[in-house]
Amino acid sequence: MTMKRFFFSAFMLLITGWSVAATDEDGSRLWLRMETANTAAIVTGIKGTAMTELQTYWQGGPVMLKRQKGLAKDGYTIKSQGDKIVIAAANDAGLLYGAYHLLRLQQTGNSSSSLDISEKPFYDLRILNHWDNPNGTCERGFAGKSIFFNPNPEHMKMYARANASVGINGTVLNNVNAKPEALSSENLEKVKTIADQLRPYAIRVYLSINFASPIKIGGLKTADPLDAKVIGWWKDKVNEIYRLIPDFGGFLVKANSEGEPGPQDFGRTHADGANMLAGVLKPHNGIVMWRAFVYAPQSPDRANQAYLEFMPLDGQFADNVIIQIKNGPVDFQPREPYSPLFTAMQKTQMMVEFQLTQEYLGAANHLVYLAPLWQEFFSFVKPASLRAMAGVANIGDDTNWCGHHFAQANWYAFGRAVWNPSLTSEQIANEWLRQTFSNDERMLSSVKQIMLDSREAAVNYMMPLGIHHIFAGVHHYGPEPWYSPKGLRADWTPPYYHRADSIGMGFDRTVNGSANVMQYPYELCRLYNDINTCPETLLTWFHHVPWDHKMKSGRTFWDELCHKYDDGVHQARHFLAAWDAMQPYVDKQRFSEVQRKLRIQARDAEWWRDACLLYFQTFSHRPIPQDVEHPVHNLDEMMQFRIPITMYENPENGYNK
Amino acid sequence: MTMKRFFFSAFMLLITGWSVAATDEDGSRLWLRMETANTAAIVTGIKGTAMTELQTYWQGGPVMLKRQKGLAKDGYTIKSQGDKIVIAAANDAGLLYGAYHLLRLQQTGNSSSSLDISEKPFYDLRILNHWDNPNGTCERGFAGKSIFFNPNPEHMKMYARANASVGINGTVLNNVNAKPEALSSENLEKVKTIADQLRPYAIRVYLSINFASPIKIGGLKTADPLDAKVIGWWKDKVNEIYRLIPDFGGFLVKANSEGEPGPQDFGRTHADGANMLAGVLKPHNGIVMWRAFVYAPQSPDRANQAYLEFMPLDGQFADNVIIQIKNGPVDFQPREPYSPLFTAMQKTQMMVEFQLTQEYLGAANHLVYLAPLWQEFFSFVKPASLRAMAGVANIGDDTNWCGHHFAQANWYAFGRAVWNPSLTSEQIANEWLRQTFSNDERMLSSVKQIMLDSREAAVNYMMPLGIHHIFAGVHHYGPEPWYSPKGLRADWTPPYYHRADSIGMGFDRTVNGSANVMQYPYELCRLYNDINTCPETLLTWFHHVPWDHKMKSGRTFWDELCHKYDDGVHQARHFLAAWDAMQPYVDKQRFSEVQRKLRIQARDAEWWRDACLLYFQTFSHRPIPQDVEHPVHNLDEMMQFRIPITMYENPENGYNK
Repeated sequence: MTMKRFFFSAFMLLITGWSVAATDEDGSRLWLRMETANTAAIVTGIKGTAMTELQTYWQGGPVMLKRQKGLAKDGYTIKSQGDKIVIAAANDAGLLYGAYHLLRLQQTGNSSSSLDISEKPFYDLRILNHWDNPNGTCERGFAGKSIFFNPNPEHMKMYARANASVGINGTVLNNVNAKPEALSSENLEKVKTIADQLRPYAIRVYLSINFASPIKIGGLKTADPLDAKVIGWWKDKVNEIYRLIPDFGGFLVKANSEGEPGPQDFGRTHADGANMLAGVLKPHNGIVMWRAFVYAPQSPDRANQAYLEFMPLDGQFADNVIIQIKNGPVDFQPREPYSPLFTAMQKTQMMVEFQLTQEYLGAANHLVYLAPLWQEFFSFVKPASLRAMAGVANIGDDTNWCGHHFAQANWYAFGRAVWNPSLTSEQIANEWLRQTFSNDERMLSSVKQIMLDSREAAVNYMMPLGIHHIFAGVHHYGPEPWYSPKGLRADWTPPYYHRADSIGMGFDRTVNGSANVMQYPYELCRLYNDINTCPETLLTWFHHVPWDHKMKSGRTFWDELCHKYDDGVHQARHFLAAWDAMQPYVDKQRFSEVQRKLRIQARDAEWWRDACLLYFQTFSHRPIPQDVEHPVHNLDEMMQFRIPITMYENPENGYNK
Repeated sequence: MTMKRFFFSAFMLLITGWSVAATDEDGSRLWLRMETANTAAIVTGIKGTAMTELQTYWQGGPVMLKRQKGLAKDGYTIKSQGDKIVIAAANDAGLLYGAYHLLRLQQTGNSSSSLDISEKPFYDLRILNHWDNPNGTCERGFAGKSIFFNPNPEHMKMYARANASVGINGTVLNNVNAKPEALSSENLEKVKTIADQLRPYAIRVYLSINFASPIKIGGLKTADPLDAKVIGWWKDKVNEIYRLIPDFGGFLVKANSEGEPGPQDFGRTHADGANMLAGVLKPHNGIVMWRAFVYAPQSPDRANQAYLEFMPLDGQFADNVIIQIKNGPVDFQPREPYSPLFTAMQKTQMMVEFQLTQEYLGAANHLVYLAPLWQEFFSFVKPASLRAMAGVANIGDDTNWCGHHFAQANWYAFGRAVWNPSLTSEQIANEWLRQTFSNDERMLSSVKQIMLDSREAAVNYMMPLGIHHIFAGVHHYGPEPWYSPKGLRADWTPPYYHRADSIGMGFDRTVNGSANVMQYPYELCRLYNDINTCPETLLTWFHHVPWDHKMKSGRTFWDELCHKYDDGVHQARHFLAAWDAMQPYVDKQRFSEVQRKLRIQARDAEWWRDACLLYFQTFSHRPIPQDVEHPVHNLDEMMQFRIPITMYENPENGYNK
């Protein structure tokens, strides 16, 4: 080998090696894939995290950071002044958000030389809820173990940067099913460490508390919120917290719900409980987020329960209490109507709780972009009628943070939506894709379309036409519309919700049924109450629909149901094919990891369709239409299928039968 | 309950009970579903099986059975004479076939009052080959254990009736991979019992023999066919057989093939071996069927081997030797060109061996109607150029005889085709469906179409465009185009056949390759040798086809391959949907048993498509076209899949991953 040849080969090796390393990505950088600038950018003005981030990643001209009175809290302006860019804000958080805005422009290929941007957040409180347990698991966590369990400073920094980059400014560190030990002095020391790591990024920490803590860790005989000793115990505990964490945010409380203790155990109301805690937190500017997620085994309609418990208390809550209400009246289903509490309560501060972790949407295996679901919610509930938004996080210690590369989009989108609920799903998808994958238009339009269609596809293949909660008993991943173990409370079994029989299927919530429609404003009530005006997307939510009911398509309800399920399968298959065509535009690792997930999703979509149609067919006694793909398994075989996972795990493979 | 009401209910119960019993069928009656006539039909003339069958099942007017000279052996006439029907034949077999013809007219709804039918078989020898082993298993048997292993007289009678009803007049009871013990005196007593049971139905028995029998059970030192002691041993053995079974048919021999002993072990030729046996059988009117299924591990092209070994012997075989040649040059693949021996040998009696048992066509799980395959064969090989037809049986002790209700059609069709090779696949399907299911036109047209399309569908989803032998190593059921264990002889591995590489795939059998094309007549040789004139259905059989080769559709070869596989999947799915629509016209048991099989077939079709496309894609490096369904498993996952069966079993479930 000549010397020349040797050098050439060595050079090629370098190139190849480098190129593989550069192109293969593991997703750990999320949407913050800025390369470190070769020479630090010139950034002047206010020192702090904003300056550090710009110095590290900004590749444009000089930037000046300055304080400016009169701007909204956390708001900012970005203006070109000659060859300089000036970011102005009333506080450090505003400067930080402005810095990330500028970096976002850089990453999305926006190269305007004349900037004149003015932004402020729509909501003051932009909060993630982590359902993390002291043992390191995450309830309905599909991306590994808790990131707070054994916090690594570099990991915490990335988590903080990611949140700050989209404006998230609060995080509840632990599960709403809170262990009393969350408030132990030992645990509070850990919380302090995390708070210290997040503070530079303008993120406050909150804790979920167990209402029986005064008994369980305080040694008292009661947790009655009107008991002086109990109040005293809470005061002391809160003082202890604020000594460690002066900017502590407050408490999130799940009380008298699914077996958790609460004020009703002591003959008191939700208001009694919430107001007591609010009183204790008030001097520290802390808040109480009190969840409205309540239902009872004996209730004839679970969807009615929150309204029945909370409406009588409207107006009774302290001004630092916010009632945190899930978007729908049941539980994060692929599609629900909005929870009627949102339009019913007039004198109570409310916030919506969205779920980013896909408990009911294919966990970390299915690509389901959730922004369209939130947008649908906001078409009924005015953003201004709410005080805040909470998102149940989908974050764990997996390399790519969320288990599925596209699940990162839901974290991103939540932050963007809580900053500005009027951003469209498409705008957010576009921003996220450009930062997370590339600005290549050949990739953007296809993949954006996958994202935008994905939620409706999931509704189609899981639970079209208003069907809800026909999930497997434990893991909420696959279909088990038949699940009904002897002795289990009815509202924990799918037949309670789908009510299939020889006449039809669906839950009669009309005035002749559970009267749930009456919890909605009059116009909606009228619309929902009539099977002929009720939107077909919610048909079996509100009606027991006869199999032969004529749908707008001209088909019978049964035939429509079959077609919807089949549409979902074909959509899932289309996502896979469309993604496969993206191979030239995506690094190999993420391409194949996403491909693998989309393959699972397409298989699971078939599982859903076939299991549900075969099961419901045992009631409808009608044939599956010829132009719908016919099930390739027998129902009894499908009913044998088990995914042996708990509620803390992502299924490795999905449907494999 | 009033008395009247009671009677009514009891009546309804009776009706319902009766109707369920009558409608549910287990397939054990095959296509012979005639009800026993209420009063015995008036049948006069020659006594025997023909008379008994008509007395039991004929529901029309008087029938007379008579002998008539001048008619062909086994032929018959059926003529209306006044109010009587006269069946005339030269022998008992002819009368029996005439009787079954009349019953077939009854069952297929043909009610002509003026019959004038004249029939005779195209081939004299209409023979089933059973690959049954002494231990009760059937090689490539997918319908349970051997029916000869522990023969039940009722079972034997049904088997005989079924054969006779379609004109089959011979049966080889044991596997061509014959144990020497097949000729033991103990076994011959069993064979005699079976022969006695089949004789009333004009069926002669034959045996496969092991060429080394003189050594193995005779205690001789050699089996050299020219050795006097060996010849003496065979003479004695044959005499022993004919003492027990005076109408014994003869021997079927697999020699010097796949490890079986043969004359070449003693330096003799196939002709030496066959002629020695023929000489011994000749005095008894016995025949030798000598198989041409030979190939060698060192052969550069297995497809060439039979021609190379047998052509030099053309003209050397005795006149009671028939060379039995598989329809294609390799081994019962979904599609092969015809074996070139058929057009090459000019001075040798030949018979074709078709395989009814679906060794390479989805076993007893896939609905594949084989008559179109045979029709395709006969479009190249003139029926008159052959002496006989053999069909490798798909029969076992399963309740429905063949494992799959529709596999019965292949048994039926074989009998009909060997009787009259010019019957179309459609005619035979029509006859069989009418007798086996019903004369309901709503059922007939749909299901007939499934049958007629089924073989091409199987080719599409398994091995389109000339691909062959890419089956799993042991069971030949699923795809394992990658199967290539270290040290295994190459011609037992799929890569030997598909030869996929970065350029393309396929076996170059042109004059520049293995020159296999030269074994065909000149016109065909020219046609096959040119990639642009070679039929696309055989393209990779004869050519190493570049991935970018332009096909007649305008697509590249790779894209066409993807489309063909996908077409097959959609065809299999369509069969399922079309069958599902037949529920009103088919009894519940057979409906759901067939449905279950069609579900397996649709899943298996996906397995084939996805495994093959993903595997071949590792060579083609081309994307799967957007309008083709994309694989939902990763190749490495699919490569893990195993069906733990031997070559004696039908897979319970097919592809389950």
